[in-house]
Amino acid sequence: MTAAPDPDDARRTEELYGPLTESLRRLVDVTIRSDADEPDVVRARQLIEEAAELLGSHVHPDPYPVRRTVDGRFLTWGNVAIGLRNAIAPPLKVRRVENGRVTTDLVLGAAYEGPVGHVHGGVCALILDHILGATAHRPDAPAFTGTLTVRYVAPTRLGALRAEAWVDREEGIKTFAAGRITDANGTVTVEAEGIFIRPRVRGG
Amino acid sequence: MTAAPDPDDARRTEELYGPLTESLRRLVDVTIRSDADEPDVVRARQLIEEAAELLGSHVHPDPYPVRRTVDGRFLTWGNVAIGLRNAIAPPLKVRRVENGRVTTDLVLGAAYEGPVGHVHGGVCALILDHILGATAHRPDAPAFTGTLTVRYVAPTRLGALRAEAWVDREEGIKTFAAGRITDANGTVTVEAEGIFIRPRVRGG
Repeated sequence: MTAAPDPDDARRTEELYGPLTESLRRLVDVTIRSDADEPDVVRARQLIEEAAELLGSHVHPDPYPVRRTVDGRFLTWGNVAIGLRNAIAPPLKVRRVENGRVTTDLVLGAAYEGPVGHVHGGVCALILDHILGATAHRPDAPAFTGTLTVRYVAPTRLGALRAEAWVDREEGIKTFAAGRITDANGTVTVEAEGIFIRPRVRGG
Repeated sequence: MTAAPDPDDARRTEELYGPLTESLRRLVDVTIRSDADEPDVVRARQLIEEAAELLGSHVHPDPYPVRRTVDGRFLTWGNVAIGLRNAIAPPLKVRRVENGRVTTDLVLGAAYEGPVGHVHGGVCALILDHILGATAHRPDAPAFTGTLTVRYVAPTRLGALRAEAWVDREEGIKTFAAGRITDANGTVTVEAEGIFIRPRVRGG
């Protein structure tokens, strides 16, 4: 565990790497959809290699983990679902509403495709795993998935979507959560139930 | 639906965009782990923007879908799990072994992280959804997920993993598949069962 970063340092890092990662998300998208000529593709690859060399000149040896700032905030920059610095992450912006309910609005493009024009079923599962799990997270105790069941009730087209989750019940360290994905018309396309485990804290 | 590409054109496109996307995967990884100074990060962003402009000079208006070549091969370049041109995809390389069994070996780094040092539970679900579904795919009839149940039986550390799946039974258009993820020690970390639907072909 490295030292907890100063909150101001953390904010500066976010202001620096947030826009970088947004640009990178656009690059991931156009790499899939591009019809550019060979010289442009070859040149684009050189630029990508050059960017990777600059960023790779100083790297953390390990995957960049969740870190906690000195004011106690968790930094989940690398997380594949919500990570500010992870171009794979849409990223999900999880909002907590009343009664432990959580919700996120997102727009998924070409990079999340499975069947033609549709979100990959596994991406729906990833989103639901994360958002159902978020109902069980506590500031000092992240929750791990025990079991996840996902039912695909209608096709999920690429585009604007909402995911929501809520707690059905809690039993000791187990949270029983449920949730769903709805499309822009309000049609439920995927439903999920999951059991999430919050390991006891050290000494707890 | 655009015209089916010539197999030679398809191969040239793969030879051009495959290495580009591999470079992009490395860039996604170092963007998460970088500790570079501000001027290097700012310059890297400029290079990324420049690459996106080159590739974006000619793009398909729609998400780049599965296409079929004139020799009947499917091109799943954009697929989020297996897409040659999708930097989000590890990409999975699905091998078919005996009796409809499928398997894939993969190495997951920082970009697939959830809990510190571990693969995000939703990424495990994505991989299992794809590989279980692959048991039900037929050249002329892709399968869609009906239901997927995932049990997390041990932590999945980032690193080398194997995913495998097999058909339990088939009933009409439904394939009942099962599968699992094992780590480098051979420990099963995640198990899954799924029902996949193969829609009847046109006129079928």
